Amino acid sequence: MGRPPVVTLTTDFGMADGYVAAMKGVILRIAPEAHLIDISHEIEPHRVRVAAFVLYAAYSYFPDHTIHIVVVDPGVGGDRRAIAFGTPAGSFVGPDNGVFTYIMAREEIQQLVELREPGYRLDPLSGTFHGRDLFAPAAAHLATGTPLGDLGPSVDDPVTLALPLLEVGPASLKGEVMHVDRFGNAITSIGRLAWRGAELVLDPAFGRGGPSGGAAFSAQGAVTDAAGWEITGICRTYAEADRDQVLALVGSGGYLEIAMREGSAARELRLSAGAPVVVRYS
Amino acid sequence: MGRPPVVTLTTDFGMADGYVAAMKGVILRIAPEAHLIDISHEIEPHRVRVAAFVLYAAYSYFPDHTIHIVVVDPGVGGDRRAIAFGTPAGSFVGPDNGVFTYIMAREEIQQLVELREPGYRLDPLSGTFHGRDLFAPAAAHLATGTPLGDLGPSVDDPVTLALPLLEVGPASLKGEVMHVDRFGNAITSIGRLAWRGAELVLDPAFGRGGPSGGAAFSAQGAVTDAAGWEITGICRTYAEADRDQVLALVGSGGYLEIAMREGSAARELRLSAGAPVVVRYS
Amino acid sequence: MGRPPVVTLTTDFGMADGYVAAMKGVILRIAPEAHLIDISHEIEPHRVRVAAFVLYAAYSYFPDHTIHIVVVDPGVGGDRRAIAFGTPAGSFVGPDNGVFTYIMAREEIQQLVELREPGYRLDPLSGTFHGRDLFAPAAAHLATGTPLGDLGPSVDDPVTLALPLLEVGPASLKGEVMHVDRFGNAITSIGRLAWRGAELVLDPAFGRGGPSGGAAFSAQGAVTDAAGWEITGICRTYAEADRDQVLALVGSGGYLEIAMREGSAARELRLSAGAPVVVRYS
Repeated sequence: MGRPPVVTLTTDFGMADGYVAAMKGVILRIAPEAHLIDISHEIEPHRVRVAAFVLYAAYSYFPDHTIHIVVVDPGVGGDRRAIAFGTPAGSFVGPDNGVFTYIMAREEIQQLVELREPGYRLDPLSGTFHGRDLFAPAAAHLATGTPLGDLGPSVDDPVTLALPLLEVGPASLKGEVMHVDRFGNAITSIGRLAWRGAELVLDPAFGRGGPSGGAAFSAQGAVTDAAGWEITGICRTYAEADRDQVLALVGSGGYLEIAMREGSAARELRLSAGAPVVVRYS
Repeated sequence: MGRPPVVTLTTDFGMADGYVAAMKGVILRIAPEAHLIDISHEIEPHRVRVAAFVLYAAYSYFPDHTIHIVVVDPGVGGDRRAIAFGTPAGSFVGPDNGVFTYIMAREEIQQLVELREPGYRLDPLSGTFHGRDLFAPAAAHLATGTPLGDLGPSVDDPVTLALPLLEVGPASLKGEVMHVDRFGNAITSIGRLAWRGAELVLDPAFGRGGPSGGAAFSAQGAVTDAAGWEITGICRTYAEADRDQVLALVGSGGYLEIAMREGSAARELRLSAGAPVVVRYS
Repeated sequence: MGRPPVVTLTTDFGMADGYVAAMKGVILRIAPEAHLIDISHEIEPHRVRVAAFVLYAAYSYFPDHTIHIVVVDPGVGGDRRAIAFGTPAGSFVGPDNGVFTYIMAREEIQQLVELREPGYRLDPLSGTFHGRDLFAPAAAHLATGTPLGDLGPSVDDPVTLALPLLEVGPASLKGEVMHVDRFGNAITSIGRLAWRGAELVLDPAFGRGGPSGGAAFSAQGAVTDAAGWEITGICRTYAEADRDQVLALVGSGGYLEIAMREGSAARELRLSAGAPVVVRYS
């Protein structure tokens, strides 16, 4: 092989209690060679949409044979299904509660199954910790080469959440804040990346170029929200702005980001997930 | 081999200062193939009992050849001993201050030594960071196959803390909160798991079954503490309760847990480690 | 081989947003066998000097073939250079903003280059996340054996910060607090370790010995700052002091440390980085 399996973990468990470690122990019993990578365990408890975004922002940088586990699972033990699915960009294992919404909007689903085969879970299966008893063993078995179809029957109606607002008008784009990160950067749904079935017209206008070239977005952009703030122009880097200045730029994920050099734009402008953002251009 | 060694780490060091990383560097110098897994570094500083519980909740999910290091060590550099011991469920390395109390109550100790051999520690040995200078090298040498007996002389009187309260009466069980986790779930000492020498009579009554079967605990359980709260009935999952409702269930570790669906039972009921909990059954 | 490459990461990204994971994904695509070790992701945002110290305190415990990435990078996308350099104690990759100051003061730089070769970065290169797009791929290529010289042209004027104050007088040493750790220990610049070009005369007087021997520092040391506190005598371990007592000892990194047994000396004495500390001896 020469290419050890990679399993990532995204949860709302925090790192204090050892819950994540129990999952890793289970994986290593089944797949001793697996590389275990934490995406985040600091998802606010039960916030499925936040987990969906954080996974989305990271998954595409991993090798294509990576298996991504997500456990933000307020319905654990209830009647929500447990699923796993394969795409050309990796496999995914977790609750069927919409946490894979962005992945499903971007990637082709090759096969999607419900995790029902008793041979690929811990026995007894707890009613409260499917991360350890169900998702970790399923992912580990996938990592050792078990075919997805062995884990359970096919499903064709996975749960998805509404995609974030993105309306393209003749002179404006209307979106919303998708995520606020540790630095207080507010990442909006206004991006150069096309959603499947909703091609974004502005695409080429958003600046891809590196420091040494590339056509930057140069229109007179104005970003406003209900609170009345407005930013004119799009920066290329945080360093272009002054230290107290709020700025707009295309962030590292390809989305319009409201930021502040060495400060928190989210605090300054009272932005949180769901806040409306409009771009006007001329 | 095909089965790389696994070394886990449980400390109160936090992840900000690089102390855990120094330990990992030491281990990788000696055992370059080791998988290094964090159990927790967010133990409240110097809280030996908390570390003991967190390790206990996670260790049994790891492969049997795993080596578990714990460094919650208020007596570092003083006259507390440094120990290592083997069990059929893994090896353990750390200070002899009671942090292995639960492990010792559950697992058969095959051999226990004091870490005195100068060849298996860093030189000089600091008086303040035995995690890096003493426990990490000892664990790494074990990971490469060094026999436990090479690390020092045998010891037969390790320090243990009092086990948590568990009194079994004809119509009630008396226990205490052992741990409050990130979600505010209060994990009690009332469990289906038998302590060595203190078999728990209620054993079969606690619900083991998976979603598809098993006889759930169905008695009219009443859980009360001095503050006067009372919960009737035992749920199987968090999802069975309403969103603001405090509930009791058998948690993923096999212990009675006081929880709240998408909320903090510990905050709601002012529970912390040591709080008394009584189960009455009829 | 038998010796997998090791790559460490030190950032101010936190672990909530998945930014660190994106870097790890990039590395594993290029160097699938690499061991990825977190030194710290809890550096206070944009605090280059803190990152410099935390890296310095950990790097020397890693294998010599380790590659250390640091991304505390307030100038990302601006005109600060991106660099990589090799030393006998490891290779280093990050922004040229002084974050390697302590490493450069201690280790011989064998080769130092600017990361300009487009073949060793992601395309497109974002203007905001060089950790993922530039430093991670460069480190991963080094991990697979790419010669440092392939990454770009040599540079001989890296940016360094002022070294912390350390003045050696006939009867006193004048230094400053370099770092306050999670426990509230204030680590000073007064150490037994010689800075290149500033050999510290007290060197042998600082206690190296283990519990069983060694000549401890036994002079009547007095540590004072502007606020007027004074500590007499140097302890060997935290455990030597009473529980409420502030003490001075030589910490695990070889520096004089102001500490408190199971308490925070920094809070007690209002110490933070930069606070002056004087040792008088007779």
